[in-house]
Amino acid sequence: MLVDVNLKPAEMPWREFGGGIDFKTLRTSPETGTWSVMFRCSKGSSFRPHRHLGGGEYLVMKGCMFIRGGVENGGVTANEGDYGYEPNGVLHDQTDFPEETILFFTNDGPLQFLTDDHEPDFVLDVTMIEQLSESAPIAA
Amino acid sequence: MLVDVNLKPAEMPWREFGGGIDFKTLRTSPETGTWSVMFRCSKGSSFRPHRHLGGGEYLVMKGCMFIRGGVENGGVTANEGDYGYEPNGVLHDQTDFPEETILFFTNDGPLQFLTDDHEPDFVLDVTMIEQLSESAPIAA
Amino acid sequence: MLVDVNLKPAEMPWREFGGGIDFKTLRTSPETGTWSVMFRCSKGSSFRPHRHLGGGEYLVMKGCMFIRGGVENGGVTANEGDYGYEPNGVLHDQTDFPEETILFFTNDGPLQFLTDDHEPDFVLDVTMIEQLSESAPIAA
Amino acid sequence: MLVDVNLKPAEMPWREFGGGIDFKTLRTSPETGTWSVMFRCSKGSSFRPHRHLGGGEYLVMKGCMFIRGGVENGGVTANEGDYGYEPNGVLHDQTDFPEETILFFTNDGPLQFLTDDHEPDFVLDVTMIEQLSESAPIAA
Repeated sequence: MLVDVNLKPAEMPWREFGGGIDFKTLRTSPETGTWSVMFRCSKGSSFRPHRHLGGGEYLVMKGCMFIRGGVENGGVTANEGDYGYEPNGVLHDQTDFPEETILFFTNDGPLQFLTDDHEPDFVLDVTMIEQLSESAPIAA
Repeated sequence: MLVDVNLKPAEMPWREFGGGIDFKTLRTSPETGTWSVMFRCSKGSSFRPHRHLGGGEYLVMKGCMFIRGGVENGGVTANEGDYGYEPNGVLHDQTDFPEETILFFTNDGPLQFLTDDHEPDFVLDVTMIEQLSESAPIAA
Repeated sequence: MLVDVNLKPAEMPWREFGGGIDFKTLRTSPETGTWSVMFRCSKGSSFRPHRHLGGGEYLVMKGCMFIRGGVENGGVTANEGDYGYEPNGVLHDQTDFPEETILFFTNDGPLQFLTDDHEPDFVLDVTMIEQLSESAPIAA
Repeated sequence: MLVDVNLKPAEMPWREFGGGIDFKTLRTSPETGTWSVMFRCSKGSSFRPHRHLGGGEYLVMKGCMFIRGGVENGGVTANEGDYGYEPNGVLHDQTDFPEETILFFTNDGPLQFLTDDHEPDFVLDVTMIEQLSESAPIAA
């Protein structure tokens, strides 16, 4: 029987995601491949180019995110309080954080990360999220 | 071609959901039946008893939610900052808001609302959410 | 760890679904609400009016299905070998089987059955499918 | 408004998938990444090693499929009439067809194909299925 889950993210430790970005895992579904996390993106950090292999939603809890260079470059600027939907198949070749940003993010499948030449690199899926979730917590 | 969506909920009007609860629609998917909303639940309001016909996630943006009577009654007390997962099939016979509460909620399917005798009443699905979203905005 | 499932439907017993229709359960997912079955619909049987609360797919393994009265009445006639997709929200007020028909069917959520007056009746979801699956097998 | 889809696969042409395998596309969902096909696998053909990034279902319409070497090698032998569920994350390092086989297959996401050394190769997702579906039909 599946039961209600309630988590207190404020009391959960951050773990390292890489590139100046930390995360807390809120939910992983091995069955559907869905994963939900909080990301803490340090000032000046970026997500490497990736393509969504599954749709995702975000809420900016704090800070600011420039998707595809931000609105000044034809992309999206997501500010605190914003909600976004990132559809399956969309290419995010540049996602930057000009200030420390906390992001709720849930994705219904994997992300295909790309090399600088936009060649396929590794796939981040729910299994990898679960593996990263077992790394040592970050102090403070 | 599906494209990135970015919304500024703070600039969107509330619409009436009923029973002292208002909402803003962030996303509806006619294909999957998924819907994502912000709920504003006034002090003392409640969701009527319902059973989840699809899993859902919430984030308490502000306030407090007592699920199944809250932790003092064997249920869950969700506070500001909390994340929750409400699985398919779960029965929520009482969900109360002891203070004004803002809730991000996304559900992957319908909710079966129940009468006071726990008999099936109406089903809230993505079609009904879309219809409610066309009602007149609430001033202020 | 989730593992491969392989079933031999020919060796599995039929169970009674009702109204001259029998079924074999191939898969139920409590998490997503998806269920996959074989239906055996006797000559002259019908599915009662229902609305899809989740998309579904079918393959006609044998026989013939008239959806919404069949092609002669503006609906769909599905013959042996046909594939169909029935989207979330679609209303099927009449589905008839003019001959014995075997149908593979998978639905990503519940069905809302309706009374003859098209008022909401019961909801058939994955929990009910699981309960029906525990009934006594039909001899031969 | 989403509407009923009914296809007659017997009247649709095959297209080349590669490695002695042809296919017909029955459904693609850009939103969810789900795709449904018929595969026609010639005698002696194989699917290259792959990992499921999303669960899938199959029905063997005709013929025989050896998953992970077949039951004689600790895997699964799927015969005509069999149903299978292949969960998210599962590794299929060898899938062989000892005779001509027709397979209904629906997958709720991509497949990560692997090199002979089990290193990530290309990802087959709904976008690639749609591209392959635009290739020239195979005569007869």
